[in-house]
Amino acid sequence: MAKNNIKNDAITSRDEDFAKWYTDVCRKAELMDYSSVKGFIIYRPYGYALWEMIQAYMDKRFKETGHQNVYMPMLIPESLLQKEADHVEGFAPECAVVTKGGLDNLEENLVIRPTSETLFCEHYAKIVNSYRDLPKLYNQWCSVVRWEKTTRPFLRGSEFLWQEGHTIHASEEEAKEETMRMLGIYEETARELLAIPMVTGKKTEREKFAGAQETYTIEALMHDGKALQSGTSHYFGNGFAKAFDMKFLDKDNKLKHVYQTSWGVSTRLLGAIIMVHGDDNGLVLPPRVAPTQLRIIPIQQNKEGILDKANEICDTLKQAGIRADIDTSDKTPGWKFSEAEMRGIPLRLEVGPRDLQNGQCVVAKRVNGEKITLPLDENLTTSILKILDDIQQEMYEKALAFRNDHITDVTTFEDFKEVLNSKGGYVKMPWCGDEECEVKIKDETAATSRCIDTTKEADGVCPICGKKAKHIVYFARAY
Amino acid sequence: MAKNNIKNDAITSRDEDFAKWYTDVCRKAELMDYSSVKGFIIYRPYGYALWEMIQAYMDKRFKETGHQNVYMPMLIPESLLQKEADHVEGFAPECAVVTKGGLDNLEENLVIRPTSETLFCEHYAKIVNSYRDLPKLYNQWCSVVRWEKTTRPFLRGSEFLWQEGHTIHASEEEAKEETMRMLGIYEETARELLAIPMVTGKKTEREKFAGAQETYTIEALMHDGKALQSGTSHYFGNGFAKAFDMKFLDKDNKLKHVYQTSWGVSTRLLGAIIMVHGDDNGLVLPPRVAPTQLRIIPIQQNKEGILDKANEICDTLKQAGIRADIDTSDKTPGWKFSEAEMRGIPLRLEVGPRDLQNGQCVVAKRVNGEKITLPLDENLTTSILKILDDIQQEMYEKALAFRNDHITDVTTFEDFKEVLNSKGGYVKMPWCGDEECEVKIKDETAATSRCIDTTKEADGVCPICGKKAKHIVYFARAY
Repeated sequence: MAKNNIKNDAITSRDEDFAKWYTDVCRKAELMDYSSVKGFIIYRPYGYALWEMIQAYMDKRFKETGHQNVYMPMLIPESLLQKEADHVEGFAPECAVVTKGGLDNLEENLVIRPTSETLFCEHYAKIVNSYRDLPKLYNQWCSVVRWEKTTRPFLRGSEFLWQEGHTIHASEEEAKEETMRMLGIYEETARELLAIPMVTGKKTEREKFAGAQETYTIEALMHDGKALQSGTSHYFGNGFAKAFDMKFLDKDNKLKHVYQTSWGVSTRLLGAIIMVHGDDNGLVLPPRVAPTQLRIIPIQQNKEGILDKANEICDTLKQAGIRADIDTSDKTPGWKFSEAEMRGIPLRLEVGPRDLQNGQCVVAKRVNGEKITLPLDENLTTSILKILDDIQQEMYEKALAFRNDHITDVTTFEDFKEVLNSKGGYVKMPWCGDEECEVKIKDETAATSRCIDTTKEADGVCPICGKKAKHIVYFARAY
Repeated sequence: MAKNNIKNDAITSRDEDFAKWYTDVCRKAELMDYSSVKGFIIYRPYGYALWEMIQAYMDKRFKETGHQNVYMPMLIPESLLQKEADHVEGFAPECAVVTKGGLDNLEENLVIRPTSETLFCEHYAKIVNSYRDLPKLYNQWCSVVRWEKTTRPFLRGSEFLWQEGHTIHASEEEAKEETMRMLGIYEETARELLAIPMVTGKKTEREKFAGAQETYTIEALMHDGKALQSGTSHYFGNGFAKAFDMKFLDKDNKLKHVYQTSWGVSTRLLGAIIMVHGDDNGLVLPPRVAPTQLRIIPIQQNKEGILDKANEICDTLKQAGIRADIDTSDKTPGWKFSEAEMRGIPLRLEVGPRDLQNGQCVVAKRVNGEKITLPLDENLTTSILKILDDIQQEMYEKALAFRNDHITDVTTFEDFKEVLNSKGGYVKMPWCGDEECEVKIKDETAATSRCIDTTKEADGVCPICGKKAKHIVYFARAY
C-alpha cells in the first residue's frame, strides 16, 4: 500500500541536490510519470492542466494577432526533410524513423516530425499564388519527437508537447516584424502569466536554429543560477522559399520568393515554472497559471455546519471566476496541507469550528507562508482576488530581483570565470563575433552564449582574443 | 494563377457522384488538403477550426462529468501492445513501426499508438493501489496512426485526430454506468451541437472493439443512405485488468481487479457534418458548430458609409457573442456569396446603399436560401440570435425526418434486399445472434450490422436461418 503514498515523504532540498529536488517535485506534485520508453513521459492530470493553462493564454494571443491553427501530418518523408541542407543536417541525427507500415516495409522511410518546417513549406508552395494570399499565419499545437540520449522531465525529452508557428510574408520587413512580434508575445506570456522575467536577445551564428537566418530567444534564470532557453523565434529570409519553390506573383506582376518565420515554445515552460518559483516544500505556482488557485481545507469537517460553510465559500469564489476547490477527503488536515503545498496551490483557505464562531476564515499564502484572517462577509471574494493579484506581483518581483542580482558585467576572462563559479547566473561580456572565442569559452567554463544583447552597442575588446568587440553577449551555464 | 482559384468552379452534384461531391466539398471549402504521404491529410484552418469547436464543447462536458485530460507517449513498445491477446490481434496489422531512433536500430521496435489502452493500463497499474484511488477518469486528445489501404478525408485515414477516454472503476456496475454515460454525451453532442440524430445501440460480437466485452455505438445516416459509425463506448470488464495486473485493495481488504471502459470520437465527425447537411453548393454548417456563424458582405463597399456601417454591425454582433466576420476584400459580391456558401456559413448579411437608406439589411439563410429583411435597430442582435437558433432547430428536424424516413422494418431477407437497394438507409430485421447469418447478410448485400436495438425485445425468427430471433438489429451499408 505504500508505493503511492509519497506525499508525506520530504523531498530533497534544493541546496542538497538541485537535480534530485527537481525530479522529486515533478513526480511528487504528480506533474508527470515515466513510461516504459526512455525519454517519453506521461503528462499526468496536474501537469497537463498546467500546460492547458499556458495553451489557453497563448492560443488567445495568437488568434488576436491573426494566426490560425492547423494540423499537419505526423510523418515526413525522408526526401522532404532533406530539401533544405542546413535543416536536415540539424535534425537528421535526432529522428525516429518509421520503416514499416501495416506489416510491409515502406518504399520510403518516414520520419516522425522533429519540427514541421518542411511540411508547412510544401503546403504553402501549393496554396499560395498571389500577394493576395499573403501573409499566411499558421500555428500548430502538437507533440514532436527528437531522439535524445540524456533526458529530463519537461527539460529535454524524446517527445515533447509544443506549439510551432510558421508564417510566410510578401516582404522581408514584414517577416522580420512577425519574428519580433512573436518574441514579444513569448516574453509577455512569461512575464504576465508565469511571473518569469526573461532575458531576450539574438542567438549567435553557432547557436541559431538549423536553417534560420536569425534566431531570437527568451532565456529564463533558474534558482541554481543556470539559464533555460524557453522559447525561440526565427527569421528564415527566403532560404526555405528557394528550396521549396514558394513563390507568389507580386503587385508589380513579378514572381518572388516569400519571406518566412517560425517560432515555438514547449512544455519546457513547465520546467521553468518549477525551477524559478519552487521551494523545498515543492511546487509554487503563480496564481494566473495555477489550475487550482485556492484550496479550501475544512478543519474538523465532521462538526456541524463546517462542510456546508466550506462548500458555500467554494461556490461563491467559483462564481467570481476563482479556480477554487475543496478537499473533503478523509485524510488529516496536516496531510491535506502538505499536499496543497507540494502542488504549489497559491492560497489555502482553512475554516473550522472556531472560525465559524468568529465569522472568519484563515488564508495562507503558499509563496511565503503568510497567514491572513478574513471576515466571512460579502467582501471575501474581493479580498481574495486582491491577495491573488498581490501574490502574482510578489512572485514576479522576487524572480526579477533574483534575475537582476545574477546579471554581472565583466571585461576580463578571469572575472568571467570567477563570477560564473561563485554566483553563477548571466555573465555579460564583450565578444568579437568569432566562433573560435565562443567555443573556447564553452570548453573552459561549460558556459554558452545565451544571446546577444541587441539593445547595447559593444565597446572595448573581446577578452579572449583581444580583437575589437562586436557585441555584448549574455553567457551562462544552461540546461 | 488559376490553381488556387477553385471556388468559382461548380462542384459535382450529390446525385451525379456522391463520393466526388464529398471530396470536392472537403477541398473547396478548404477543410483539408492532401500531403505527400498517402492517408495523412492536412487539416487546413477552416477544418481545424471546426474540430476545435467540437473539442471545446466535448472537453467541457468531459470535465463537468469529472474527467481529467492527460497525455501519454506517442510510441508503444511492441511487447506492451502484445499483452492483451484480442487487442494485439485487432491492431497489429495496422501499425506503423519505428525501428530506428537517432541513427541507431532500436533494441525493441516501437509502434505509433493506434489507440492507447495499453499505455493507460500500464500507468494505472502503477498508480492505483486502493479503492480510494478509484475511479480514475482520464481522457486524451491526440492523433493516432492506423495503416489503412483505402483512405478518404476524415472518414478513414492513416492518421486522424480524436479523443480517447480511459477509465477504471471499483465495480462492474460503475464501469457499465460510465460506458453508457459517455455514449449519452456522444449522442447529445451530435444532437445539440452538430444537429445530427444518431441511432445508438450495441455492436454485435463480430463488430465490437478488439478486447472489449461490449461496444456501444452512435451511428449517423448520410445523405446517400449509408451509415457512418461516429463514436464508440466500450465496456472492458476486467480483461485488460488481468493482462496488466491492475489491482486495488477494496474496502473489504481484498485485492481485486479493476473494471474498465474506453470511448472515443474522431475527426470522422467532420465527415458526418458534411454528408448529413451539405448540398450541391457545398458545406452547410449548423450555427452552434460553425466557426463563423454570420458573414457580412458589404454591397458597393466603396460608397460612403457602407464599410463603417458594416463594421459597426459586425462589432455589435460580436459583442453579443455571435461569431461574425466581414468580407472587405476587393472580390465581387458574387464571388463572396459563393465562397460563404461553399463554406456553409449559416447566415449571410448584406448591407448596401439602398439598405442604408431604408435603415435595414438583408440576411440570407444558407440552409434554404430564405432571405429576411431586418431593420437596423436595437433589435438586430436579438433577431439574429433567434434566426440562428431557428436554423439549428430546422437543420436537426430536417436530418431527423430524413433519418426516420430511412429506417425500415422488415421480416424477410427479400424485403431486406429490396429496401436496401431501393431507398437505402437502415433496415431493421430480427436476428438469431449467430455470426454465420451476419456474415451471409454482409456477403450478399454489403450491409453490415450497425447495432442491436437495445430498447426492443425481438420476436419472430431470423429470416436467414429460420431460428428464433434474439435481437432486432439495424443493418446498413456503411462507410
